[in-house]
Order: sequence, then C-alpha cells, then structure tokens
Amino acid sequence: MKHYIKHDPWSIIEEGFNPDYHPISESIFSIGNGSFGQRANFEETYTGKSLQGSYIAGVYYPDKTRVGWWKNGYPEYFAKVLNAANWIGIEVLVNGIHLDLHTAEVKDFRRELNMREGWLKRNFTAKLPNGNEVGVESIRFCSMARPKVGAIKYTITPLNFSGEVTLVPYVDADVMNSDSNYDEKFWVEQEKKATHDYSYVIASTKKTDFWVSTGASYHIDGQWEKTSSKTAEREKYVEMRETGLVTQGKPFTIYKYASNVSTMDDVKRNLAKLCEEYVKEAKDAGFDKLLKEQREAWASKWEMNDIRIDGDVSAQQGIRFNIFQLNQTYTGEDERLNIGPKGFTGEKYGGSTYWDTEAYCLPFYLATAEQRVARNLLIYRYKHLQKAIENAQLLGFKDGAALYPMVTINGEECHNEWEITFEEIHRNGAIAYAIHDYINYYGDEEYLIEYGLEVLIAISRFWSQRVNWSEAKQKYVMLGVTGPNEYENNVNNNWYTSKMALWTMRYTMEGLAQWKDDERLKALKERVKFNETETERWKDILEKMYLGHDEERGIFLQQDGFLDKVIMPTSELPKSERPIHEKWSWDRILRSCFIKQADTLQGIYLFEDEFDIETIKRNFDFYEPLTVHESSLSPCVHGILASRLGRKEKAYEMYMRTARLDLDDYNNDTKDGCHTTSMAGTWMAFAKGFAGMRVRKGELFLSPSLPDQWTGYAFRIKFKEKYLIIEVSQSEVTIKNDSEGDLGFTIFGNSYEAKGKGSVSVPMQKA
Amino acid sequence: MKHYIKHDPWSIIEEGFNPDYHPISESIFSIGNGSFGQRANFEETYTGKSLQGSYIAGVYYPDKTRVGWWKNGYPEYFAKVLNAANWIGIEVLVNGIHLDLHTAEVKDFRRELNMREGWLKRNFTAKLPNGNEVGVESIRFCSMARPKVGAIKYTITPLNFSGEVTLVPYVDADVMNSDSNYDEKFWVEQEKKATHDYSYVIASTKKTDFWVSTGASYHIDGQWEKTSSKTAEREKYVEMRETGLVTQGKPFTIYKYASNVSTMDDVKRNLAKLCEEYVKEAKDAGFDKLLKEQREAWASKWEMNDIRIDGDVSAQQGIRFNIFQLNQTYTGEDERLNIGPKGFTGEKYGGSTYWDTEAYCLPFYLATAEQRVARNLLIYRYKHLQKAIENAQLLGFKDGAALYPMVTINGEECHNEWEITFEEIHRNGAIAYAIHDYINYYGDEEYLIEYGLEVLIAISRFWSQRVNWSEAKQKYVMLGVTGPNEYENNVNNNWYTSKMALWTMRYTMEGLAQWKDDERLKALKERVKFNETETERWKDILEKMYLGHDEERGIFLQQDGFLDKVIMPTSELPKSERPIHEKWSWDRILRSCFIKQADTLQGIYLFEDEFDIETIKRNFDFYEPLTVHESSLSPCVHGILASRLGRKEKAYEMYMRTARLDLDDYNNDTKDGCHTTSMAGTWMAFAKGFAGMRVRKGELFLSPSLPDQWTGYAFRIKFKEKYLIIEVSQSEVTIKNDSEGDLGFTIFGNSYEAKGKGSVSVPMQKA
Repeated sequence: MKHYIKHDPWSIIEEGFNPDYHPISESIFSIGNGSFGQRANFEETYTGKSLQGSYIAGVYYPDKTRVGWWKNGYPEYFAKVLNAANWIGIEVLVNGIHLDLHTAEVKDFRRELNMREGWLKRNFTAKLPNGNEVGVESIRFCSMARPKVGAIKYTITPLNFSGEVTLVPYVDADVMNSDSNYDEKFWVEQEKKATHDYSYVIASTKKTDFWVSTGASYHIDGQWEKTSSKTAEREKYVEMRETGLVTQGKPFTIYKYASNVSTMDDVKRNLAKLCEEYVKEAKDAGFDKLLKEQREAWASKWEMNDIRIDGDVSAQQGIRFNIFQLNQTYTGEDERLNIGPKGFTGEKYGGSTYWDTEAYCLPFYLATAEQRVARNLLIYRYKHLQKAIENAQLLGFKDGAALYPMVTINGEECHNEWEITFEEIHRNGAIAYAIHDYINYYGDEEYLIEYGLEVLIAISRFWSQRVNWSEAKQKYVMLGVTGPNEYENNVNNNWYTSKMALWTMRYTMEGLAQWKDDERLKALKERVKFNETETERWKDILEKMYLGHDEERGIFLQQDGFLDKVIMPTSELPKSERPIHEKWSWDRILRSCFIKQADTLQGIYLFEDEFDIETIKRNFDFYEPLTVHESSLSPCVHGILASRLGRKEKAYEMYMRTARLDLDDYNNDTKDGCHTTSMAGTWMAFAKGFAGMRVRKGELFLSPSLPDQWTGYAFRIKFKEKYLIIEVSQSEVTIKNDSEGDLGFTIFGNSYEAKGKGSVSVPMQKA
Repeated sequence: MKHYIKHDPWSIIEEGFNPDYHPISESIFSIGNGSFGQRANFEETYTGKSLQGSYIAGVYYPDKTRVGWWKNGYPEYFAKVLNAANWIGIEVLVNGIHLDLHTAEVKDFRRELNMREGWLKRNFTAKLPNGNEVGVESIRFCSMARPKVGAIKYTITPLNFSGEVTLVPYVDADVMNSDSNYDEKFWVEQEKKATHDYSYVIASTKKTDFWVSTGASYHIDGQWEKTSSKTAEREKYVEMRETGLVTQGKPFTIYKYASNVSTMDDVKRNLAKLCEEYVKEAKDAGFDKLLKEQREAWASKWEMNDIRIDGDVSAQQGIRFNIFQLNQTYTGEDERLNIGPKGFTGEKYGGSTYWDTEAYCLPFYLATAEQRVARNLLIYRYKHLQKAIENAQLLGFKDGAALYPMVTINGEECHNEWEITFEEIHRNGAIAYAIHDYINYYGDEEYLIEYGLEVLIAISRFWSQRVNWSEAKQKYVMLGVTGPNEYENNVNNNWYTSKMALWTMRYTMEGLAQWKDDERLKALKERVKFNETETERWKDILEKMYLGHDEERGIFLQQDGFLDKVIMPTSELPKSERPIHEKWSWDRILRSCFIKQADTLQGIYLFEDEFDIETIKRNFDFYEPLTVHESSLSPCVHGILASRLGRKEKAYEMYMRTARLDLDDYNNDTKDGCHTTSMAGTWMAFAKGFAGMRVRKGELFLSPSLPDQWTGYAFRIKFKEKYLIIEVSQSEVTIKNDSEGDLGFTIFGNSYEAKGKGSVSVPMQKA
C-alpha cells in the first residue's frame, strides 16, 4: 500500500517526482473519453521506467495463444486491445540536449488530474546535464466534446540561459504491446506523410485489419524566434522539427492537436481526410476553446453521477476517482464497445470483456446514465449469442446451449486456463441475471421478448446439460466448476454456480409463461427449435438439484468438501504471508480455506430477499473472516452485505478498500493499469451499501446509513425517467425529485411520494 | 492404428516408401547405444516431412518456461535433452542434382532394423529429376562396443548412367529443438575445422555450458575415379566434398565414421583430441570389424534379457522391439543418467526423468541387468534429495520434507502445469517404493541405512505435512491432488496417493526400527535433524487416515465424489469419440468417469498381497471398464491384474496393446518418439502378468499362464546372482539355473530347488 497521492476532493495530485512510482502514476493519471485513452506518459522523452500506452476503443488484435500445455477446447488466440500510435510525443532539445526527467535533476514536480474538468497538468523544473534549467507546464486532455481529438499545451521557460531549443512533435505508430505473446508487433504501415503543417500515419492491424489514422498539427507562440524547421519520416513514424532561439525568463508554448480515427468510425478511404479535418478544426478552435468545451462536458457528466461525501476527503476523492475513470472508459454510445478490466489505463487482461461488466458495472450505468447505455451493454451480449452457442458446441454441448466466454472482444472465447475457461461458468449466470437487473430497473418488459428470452433459453439449455444425475446422491449435481473464488478450482457443487443455474432456469420459465400468448414467442421458439419438453427437465432439476448446506453451522456450503479444510480466519495469517497470491505457492492457496472474493456471499448478495437476516449473518460471519479480498471485486460485495447487517465499521473498511484501491495501490499492481471494472463496485458499495438502495419490481427502496467517519453524503441517480438527488445527513434523509412528474419510493420501509421538482425528507434512523 | 510394419521375429521391416509415415518410421527405426541416439533420418538430403534428431545422453538445456498464466511455484525452465549435431549427413549429388527422396521417384524402398545385431539398413532405387537412376544401400549403427562411435556404410550403384557424383559427408551442429519454447537455438560454436582427412565441430550449450565435439572421417571405395575434393566451413558446420566419375552398373561405397564426445565424458580441453582418436580408431578398424563387435555386443545383451514367444510373430516382434529400445536407451553404466520418456527417439517431454523410471522401468532393469544398473537408478534420486527438499520448500513445506519433481534432469522441477507439478505428488511414493522394490529383489539391506532411509524420512515428512485433519470427517485427509489418472485434476482423497503415503510412512518406520541400534542411523538422524516425535504423528496418521470406500460395490473410491459422476463403460463410447483426449474438450474429460490409466488399480497392483482375490476382482471389474487406456502406461498394469484374475483374453489384449504400441502407432503419436518408458511396462505385463513372477522378501514366485494364441514362451532373468531361463510350454514349466550354486523358488505355490546348472520342470496348470 502506498500513500503518495495527496487528498483532495476534486483532484488527484502528486507532489515531488518519484520515478519508482511513475508506472503507477501513469495508470492513475490516465485520461480518456470513451473513444480513446492515454496513460500518463510524458510528452517529452523519458528513458526511465515507463509503460507507454495509448489505446483506441474497439481496435484489437487476436494474439496467438501462448500456453505451456495445450488442452482441447482452448481458443487459438487472445484478443487484445492494442497499444496504438503515440500521439502525445513532443521531443524537446535544449541546446542539443534531450529534456529527459530520467537524466535531468528534477525539482518542484507536481501533477494534477483535475476530475471536475477532465484534464491532466504537470509542472516541474529540470536541470539538464548541460546545466540549462527549464521550467515546464504541460496540460492535456482527450476531448469529451470531440471524441476523436486530443490537445496538449506545453509551456517552457528557460530559467538560466538563452539559447537554442528544438521541439519535435511527432506521431509514432511503431509501438508494441508489452504483453505480446511472441514479442510481435501488431501494426503495419499503410500510409504516412510529414508536412510542416500536418503529419499523419495510417497503420493497420495484422489479421483484424483495423485501420487507424493518427494525425497531428502544432503551433508555437511566446518568446520563440524560429531558426529552422524540417520534417522527417521513418517506418510508421512522422515528425515535425522546429528549432528556435529562446530567451532566459521568457516562456514559449507549443500546442499540439491530434486525432485518432479508425475503421470503427468510417471506411478506410475516408480516414486520412477525416483525421486531418478533426485536427484542423481543433487547431482552428484553439486550445482554450477546446478546454472550455471539456469543462462543460464534464460538468454535465457530474450532473448525472457525482457523489458528495462530507467530512472525509479521502473517501470523497476515492469515489470521484472511480466515477471519473468509469466515465472516461465507457460512455455507452456504441453498442460494439464494452468495458475493459483496465479501461484505457493498461494492457493487462487484454482490454477484453469479463463477467465484471454484468456483475459489477451494469448497476452503475443503470442508475447513473441514460437507459440506452445499460441496454447497449445487454445488446452487446445478445449479438454474441451465436458465438456463445458455438463456444458451447466446441466443449461438447448441443441443441443451442450457450456458454458465454470468460474473456472476449468479438464474442469468441479468448481465455486459456482450463480451470477458468471451461469451468468458471457462473459467468453465464451473470449474463442472465443482467437481463433481469435491467428489466427490473427500467420496467422494459419488451426487452425480454425482443432479446432477453433468446439469451435466457440458450443459457438455461446450457445449465440443464451441464448438471448430471448422481445415483449416489439421488440429486442433480454440477461437477467440475470454478466459482467466483478463483482460489478453488475444479470443485463439485459450487453453491453459487448451482444457485445461478437454478435461478436462470426459473426466470426463463417465468418469461416463457409471461409471453406465452405473444406471436413473437412463437416465432422465437421456432427459430431456436424450442421443444416444450425442455422445461420438464428444467423443472425436474429445480426440484432435485443438490445445494450444499451445513446443518450444524447453518450455512450454505461453498462446495463439496469445503469443511474438510483447516478452517482458520485470515486474522491468524501472518502479515508477512500476505497477499497469499504473492507469498504462497498455488497449490497451498488451493488447499487452504482462504477465499479470494465473495463466492457463497455473492449469491447471498444477489438473492438476499430469499434469506432471513440470521441466515445472511451466519454465512457472512463464516465466510467473510476466511476471505483475503485479493480480487479487486471482493470488498464491494462484502461492503454491501456489511451495511445490510448494520456492521458499519466493516462496511467502511470494505468501502475504503475498494474506493482507494488504485490511489493507494492496495494490491501492488496498479502499474499494470487501474481496476476499472471494480470501480463500479465502489459505486455499488456506496449506493447499495451505505444508501441501502434497492429496486424491486420497479420500485425504489432506500435504507441509508451513515458511517461514523462522515457527516453526510449526497448522490444522484436516474430512476424511471426521473433525476433524483439523495442527501443524507446525521439527522435526515432527503430525496429531491429534480424532474417533472411525481415519484413514489420507500425509505426505511415507509412509502413516500415526491412531487415533480419537489422533495421528501425523513429523519435518519440510528443503526 | 497403422499396420505397415512387417511382422518378423528379429527385425522391424518397412517395405515401400510411405512419406506420410516417415516421421513415425523415424521414431521406430531409431538407433542408440545408451550414450547417444539417432532417429532414422536419411543420410542424404531429404526435403520432405521429417524430424531431424540426434541426442546425446545427459546433455540438456534449461529452456525458459512458457506458460499462459504464471502460478506461484512454477519452475523457471524446462530442462530438455538437446537435439545435437547431425553426424550422419552425407549429401549426394548425381550429375549436379541432389539425391532427395522427396523429389525423386522411389522404388523398392525397404528398411530394416535388425534387433538381433543392432543395425539399421535401407535399400531403394531412385530416379532423379534429371533421369539418372541409382540403387542405394545404407547401413549404420551406434556402436555398443565403442559408445562414442557411430558408423555408416553407404553404397550407390549408378543404374542407367555413367557420370559425375559428388559426396559430401558433413557435421552440422547448427540444429535446433523442434520444441524450443521461444524458437531459440541452444548451441554456440566453440571450435571447428574441416580437413580432407577429418572434420569436427565443437559446440557448447547456452547456460548449461556442456561442450560436445562431433567429428567425422570418411573413405570411398568401389568404382570411383576421384576428380576433385575440397572442404568447407560455415557456422557450426564442416564438410568434406569429393567428386568422382562413376560407371553404370558399378557400385561405389562411402564409409563414414563419426564420434560424439562431451563434457559428460572428459574436460573441455581434451574433447577435440579424444573425438579425433575415436574416429581414427574406428576408421582404422574398418566398418566390418565394427559391425562384428556390434553383433557380439548385442548377442550378449540378448543373452541377458531376450524373451521368446512361440506361435505369435506379432507378439514376438513387439516384445523384442521393446527390449531392444530399452537397451538402446539406458545401459545403467552412468549414475548421472536416467531414462527419458522417449529415449533417444524424439524430443517430446524433454527427455527428462518422470516417475515412469521407478514405477515402470525399475522392475525390468532389476530382473534383466546387473545389480548396479538398478542401484544406479536409485542413487540418481538419492543425489537429488537436496533439490527435492528445496522443491518442497518452494511450495511451503518445511523441516526437511522432500517433494521429488514430476519432471527433471538435474533434480530441479521442470514441469509447469499446476495440477501436475504441484498435485501429482504420488510420484514421491513411487520413489519410496522403488527403494523397497530394489531391496526386496536383491536383499541389499545395507542400501536402506546407507541411502534409502534418508530419502524415506524426507518423503514421509512430506506426506505428514501434506495431509490435514478434517474436523468434518474426524479423519486425516489429503486435499488437492492428481492421481495417476490425469483425467482427474485437483481431487480430494485420491485413494492411490493416500495409500502410497501411508505405505511410505509405515515402511520408513520399519526401517528406523530395523536399524535402530546402528551407529549410522544415529548419524543420519543428527544430519537430518530427525525428531523422535515425528513418528508419533505418522502413527496417528496411519491410524486415522481417510481412505474412500464404497460399501455397496465393495470397491475403493478413486476419490471423493467419484460416484457422483455418470458411470458408463467405455464400451458405450462411440468409436468416433475416441481417443477422448483428441475428440473431447478437457472439461468434458474431467467431468466424465473415464480413466486414463490405472489409478486405484495401480495401488491394487502394488499392494496386491493386502487384498483377497474377490476384492481385486470387484475393483478390476468396476474400474477397468471405465478405463480408456490413453496413457501408454495403462495397459501393462491392467494386463498384470487380468493375468492375476485368470482373464486370459483381457491379459492378451492389454499385452498386445502395450507391446505393439509404437509399431502400430496405436496412440497416433509415435512420430514424436517411441514410448520408451512404457516399453518396460510391456516387460512387466509379460513377466509379472503371463509368467506370474513375484519376488517377496527375497523369494521368487512364478505362476505362469499361457495365452491361447501362443504355444510357448521363454525368458531370462537374473535373480540373486543367478541367471535363470524360464520356459513355458502347453505342458510344462521349466526353470533352468544357468549359474553355479543352487536356487530355491516357488512355482504354482510349491517350493522347488534347481541345482547349479540344473533345471526343474513342473506340469502346466490349466487356467
């Protein structure tokens, strides 16, 4: 854990240059606009430790699978979001010497990610090896208003010299992924041109043949007496080089305007022109206007989903950072896109889609964005249904059974660990549950018959084939699975997975019943060759499925044999042995009772209304103490349950762990990128945890609590076409209905109605 | 399965050239002498599909581990026996055109591996693209009498032309392993020289710094009018090129003498000289003398371990092929060496040591070689004990517990599948059992106190730490293991593994008791810091270990939950779905009841004296029908048990499957190399199966049966310094004591004694 980020309600601030932490900062200070994103690499040359990273939404490469031992059923490749052309680069030479913070003496270094306005600023003074000192301020952003455009303002002040400076704004598409399986480069040059006015490279990806044009233009003002300029080209690289005389104490500024346009946006032949237009329009508008647009765009984002926390700057900064990164990653405008586990902040996990989207991200977008955003996330999976059916076929399933991939970009499975790829099948349940989650929130029942049921039938078919009848148990069992707790592999009868399977089949049958008289259902049944006897088996499974339970402890059993382990709370684990995923061998982890992330408790969280409070408590008190929370997705679910049980201290601990996971580099891996999908979990830990927000059959329920560390909080949601502001103080809960029209809801179990533009206040309940 | 090998009692013969089968034949027709080995590649250029392979015993390279997802505890590298310099190469140009069977028209192709005499011969006629026709006969061998020497006689007859032929004998060390993880070359040139008389290359391995000198000389006779000769050198390559005029119908012959000498044999500075001496001595002796020595050496090998089968040429050929390959692979003269799973016939599995050595190979060498051979196999592991202790430490074990590696060359673990590397720990039991096996056979009790107990204590310590107390079961359990059946991973309470653990602890305690008054034991205990209380825990485990058992079926349970599976015999598996390891996805295999190789039955086989015949039968009848025998190590154990149960047909089926596994390419993978370690299993299926041979407490027991397909058989063993010939006919069993001094033994339960040089005959029993 690290504590070098300064606490501030609206900004992420680092003071003083720490090269060791630079790769972490490069992740944390990332900027993006849903269309492309950029790690916080320096504009000027930097020869110290760094992960150069620029990513364009949807542009991926199928990197040939690398495994030690092939298992039948493995996919041929792992789809990776690509490290794309460097558009930020500006080489700076001072009297012939490169400005490079690795070789210079650096003072007064400060960087700030202003989340309210959406820009990254960096200030420092540097003494170069030749003794020349410069002061620098750079500010840049990825425009929210112009999603293909990025802009940089880079100001240098010669502090102790007058002399010659060379500035080299460039575009470099000769980049590679640091995680390339076979150290291959994935880009091929198609076209390039360097002119004094505008330079660009069009590069295409091997195999997938995405084309990307990255273009840039620049402009210098301030105390700058141009002496020469020229351009240069190399493979996949263009530069514009300008040299000028500068004067001690007099600043000069280079503005760089850049654009990334890809075949996700337009056809190949239009890319060059489009890219140049975007750059020129941006240059014509000028940096200040672009920055003003940026401020306004972010203001309206925050209008939708800000959370205010009073009396706890650290918690405040954490939640805003999480919401900020989510907004930078996914805007929901393009149904071809999804949310990568690292957003645009790193390469790990390939930038692909995991079950995180449905299980952790959807609730955030449901409540804080327009309806189409959540719907697009569902449609993404609907469009992949055929691939999911093919994936299941590859594993031996039949008759239209679907297994959605563990990791994907285009619907095909990418992952290649048998215990995950083939066995962590609960993901299928998350995708089914998301359909319910969406319909439940928006009441969009039509979605079920238009799209949802087709997916649900295919998933139910999978479950019904995946279980088998055990003669020994005289029950249906589900063998060889891996639950959400990946510290157990290939277990039998994982309670969570079985529970998800049963729920899916039941929900599917309800949907079939609900729409039984609709012509569209008839057409669907024909299309998917639905046999009425299929539900007979589902019913039989629902009746006779084995779900492990320990009578003595009154708990659900995570899996067969769990109680054969040595049961020992994590509090007895020496600190020197944590995190166990770093300190212990894999087999020792597997044999231990320690749980990576909510597994049985994930099921309790999803289906909480099925259980009385004592059952929830017994399971929580058994499993949470065994949980090491070494997945970023763990603390949020435990935080929600802790709030539900009135365990305020535990809820706060879990919340802070998820909210500041990256800011404090809790898991020692933020250098690889931020934990973007778990950031939505933070929002859940807040809204479903502290605020006790639930939606049941289209009704909103709130049951807020207030951590002792806070004096109050406020957050905004969108619910049934209404914008609501929920404010909680030590004395009362207020819900403001910021829209026209009335809205009813339940607070602490009592029903209220807020008139259009009106509000309701009720006294706080003591925990 | 393929049937292109001609049946013959003493030779492996292929008639007609089948390029598709060539990579298979390259494995089958391999030659070796324990010191080096050579796949049946062609001497002349061949541009068709081929796996060029030349291997030198003990010369390996630590190839950097390649995995998709790293697990803590994985080794850094996989040690691979290296593909070494090509010493057989002779380029042939006929009027300027390469002789290449890929581009020529080939007729009358025949190759023969003469097992009785230990040489490989090939005949063919070829019509080259220029119309020239040649007849060729080549014969070669790796000398058993001169273990560093190989010799080739290559005769060409111009059939339809007179003209110019160029012969280019060369040495090429610029080779690579086809299974190199990162397509790297592992050899570095150190020295080379090409002269008309003698040429050599010294190459060294990266990292391990083995040096190998490969040298060759040649001589041409017959109708050959030399017109020119020259030498050439390239990186890691030397050649001697001679051109001559040849006459239609008149044969000419090139002899090539080569040697491989490595730093396994002598220090670096001596290699060049030694290699040259070996080559020159061989050349001076001449091909015919070398061949005579070879015949004699093989005759004395067969004197030790031939098996004769009457009335079944196919079975006869199979067993001799197996014995032949074992003799080619491992002679037992060098305790630094061991038996690679493919011998010198291919690269797969890295040429490293597996538990196969102890579980399958040891019994063969015990009974058919001098005592030092088996002893050296044990000493090999003794010398690796410290590494095994370090390996266990890496996984979290302590206090001198040892886990021997799954795969190794130098004692360090090489394998990198968590479910195997960390969990297939029964290998530790095989290494312990081998100590018992050896002492039991030879009565070498001193071995226990000198070496054995130190290993046994370390392994028992491992088992006692590897089990844990289950509060739920009120028993000790062993969680997270993989048994010999690798079609189940990460299971709990694998009966075989638990049984092995218990046996080890008991045997160790017996050894401690046996030597309790010996000073050497006191010294050993001090050295390994043995605490007397350790055995208290072992005793407790022996008393309270959980071993799964199904009362209803009266069988031992392969693992927890096995009976939750759908139990279905392999006979109901459609042929189109076999082998399942090719046709099914990995998870489907894992969830199925199908067993790759003997698992519970492996334990029944090892500890058969503990069980009554009904118990053996019930377990066999339950498990064998579920077994797909997709490991080459499977049929032999089942064959032994089938013989024990008087199931003659099943025993014969299993025997033939193991005996002709490679000759008939049963598993469709012989192209990667022969299944060398399973070949010793064939010997077991014969001796322990059909002949019912057992050694119990230093006493020999025989209980022969005769398959209906055979009229009789005979085999030779060495037992207690006596050479015995056991002959079985339809009417009687005869044991000839071919040594001085008397020997007692038991046949069909009755005791007999054969005088020195005398014999005993008893009537056959009907099954």
